Amino acid sequence: MATHRFDPNFTDNVVNAMGPKTNPRFRKLMTSLIRHVHDFARENEVTVDEWMAGVQLMNWAGQMSDDKRNEGQLVCDVIGLESLVDEITFKLAEEAEDAPTATAILGPFFRADTPYRKNGDNIVKGVTDGEMAFMHGRVIDFTTKKPLVGATVEVWQAATNGLYEQQDPNQEEFNLRGKFKTDEEGRYNFYCLRPTPYPVPDDGPAGKLLKLMDRHPFRPAHIHIIATHDGYKPLTTQIFDSKDQYLTNDSVFAVKDSLIVDFVPREGDPQAGLELNYDVKLVPAQSNSTNGV
Amino acid sequence: MATHRFDPNFTDNVVNAMGPKTNPRFRKLMTSLIRHVHDFARENEVTVDEWMAGVQLMNWAGQMSDDKRNEGQLVCDVIGLESLVDEITFKLAEEAEDAPTATAILGPFFRADTPYRKNGDNIVKGVTDGEMAFMHGRVIDFTTKKPLVGATVEVWQAATNGLYEQQDPNQEEFNLRGKFKTDEEGRYNFYCLRPTPYPVPDDGPAGKLLKLMDRHPFRPAHIHIIATHDGYKPLTTQIFDSKDQYLTNDSVFAVKDSLIVDFVPREGDPQAGLELNYDVKLVPAQSNSTNGV
Repeated sequence: MATHRFDPNFTDNVVNAMGPKTNPRFRKLMTSLIRHVHDFARENEVTVDEWMAGVQLMNWAGQMSDDKRNEGQLVCDVIGLESLVDEITFKLAEEAEDAPTATAILGPFFRADTPYRKNGDNIVKGVTDGEMAFMHGRVIDFTTKKPLVGATVEVWQAATNGLYEQQDPNQEEFNLRGKFKTDEEGRYNFYCLRPTPYPVPDDGPAGKLLKLMDRHPFRPAHIHIIATHDGYKPLTTQIFDSKDQYLTNDSVFAVKDSLIVDFVPREGDPQAGLELNYDVKLVPAQSNSTNGV
Repeated sequence: MATHRFDPNFTDNVVNAMGPKTNPRFRKLMTSLIRHVHDFARENEVTVDEWMAGVQLMNWAGQMSDDKRNEGQLVCDVIGLESLVDEITFKLAEEAEDAPTATAILGPFFRADTPYRKNGDNIVKGVTDGEMAFMHGRVIDFTTKKPLVGATVEVWQAATNGLYEQQDPNQEEFNLRGKFKTDEEGRYNFYCLRPTPYPVPDDGPAGKLLKLMDRHPFRPAHIHIIATHDGYKPLTTQIFDSKDQYLTNDSVFAVKDSLIVDFVPREGDPQAGLELNYDVKLVPAQSNSTNGV
């Protein structure tokens, strides 16, 4: 029963054009996507010019994207989609006090080829106007609380100018990122910057959307983490500085309460005036638990 | 009242992040788009991997697009979106017998810089395996039925190999396209090919989607037309050969009954064995009518 004045069979015709060899999950997704997109067009009486503006914006996103930048991802991020599928994927029902580490979005600045560094290394090169912090902690089994030896902790963060190294020709390659292996006590540690808030890049379609939506582009200060260990579910997350002014209005909607951390003063270390103690709690691969539940 | 198990406030938070200076129409569109996209993700429990596959597909579409190809548009076309917004824009309620010419989608192969040619010219160069047709007719005022002098009729069509000239290095530039001015009787005429069915390009994301949906990529044989005249609403349409096998299952869902035409035998013309008489009916710019109603 059509509640609109357009051809009532049009959407069914498009859905029913799918052939019998369509993968069932793909058929379900495309059926739903086609119905939602068509309903969006009819409910708002989207015109050819408006639709074409959307097409050009999406093409522009692809044209800006390469192995160092994913603008299509950023467009999704500013409408909350990556955070939502992150929640869905990890079925985060609640953020209980004693829970494995919650997930957060990967974001567009991950690099697959980040090198390993040694515990105790400093990932900061050429940034002189930031606060240095010593970040340390353990990777532990959430179930048994035992430390995990040889786990990998990968981190990346922006410089104080708001740019990740692949965005900034003045930073050396892989600056402010690194992979670390936990030692025999399950410990990792390194020197990094206290993170600072920064705007997501606004020179492309994501920035254009933010301006049109009268929104600021800032993300609260954060450090990206991926932690992995054989036999455990890989974890992608971010931790957020409790002092940040953008905690409640992150431009990509990624903050979760359990991921807010405190940087505290550190005494007697010439390399850093702050420290952050942060344990990562992984879930065994066989467990029915997921990170965050 | 949430009917799902995810954060019930998440989507409202994203929508409400829009600031007061957002344009009202843009706010309406983004609010609806964000709600539909989030509902799509929740209803299907879309995972991070599935979402990322979609992002990469859309980025790929942008990367393939340039001034000669619009792959983002083609992706929309194969899910019926361009035909739907065409229907919406022109509020095509029915295809009455006596109506101005109905609209159809522009498609991705329009070129803004197509040259004018003289009436009687042949737009076919270097294609020897097609059937030649003499296409002729008038541009008339739908209301008064009077012929329109000096109206522009722009046409484009694919070669028998299924390629438009900008897709095919073996065709000369602007082959099989041209603009014509109507004479003092409102008449235009030129030689062209009887159009042949062809597959939309399947070397990119649109083709990948079609394969995944187990659908064929063919479009029924058609000629694209744009007709314009000062004081009249511009018309974008396509006409379809009544003999074509794909009339009922166009891969981009653009066929309308009123746009199906008959090529008939032509006697005594060494340049063409077929002819097509086709009048274009334009609507005065001041009229409340739109093409197709």
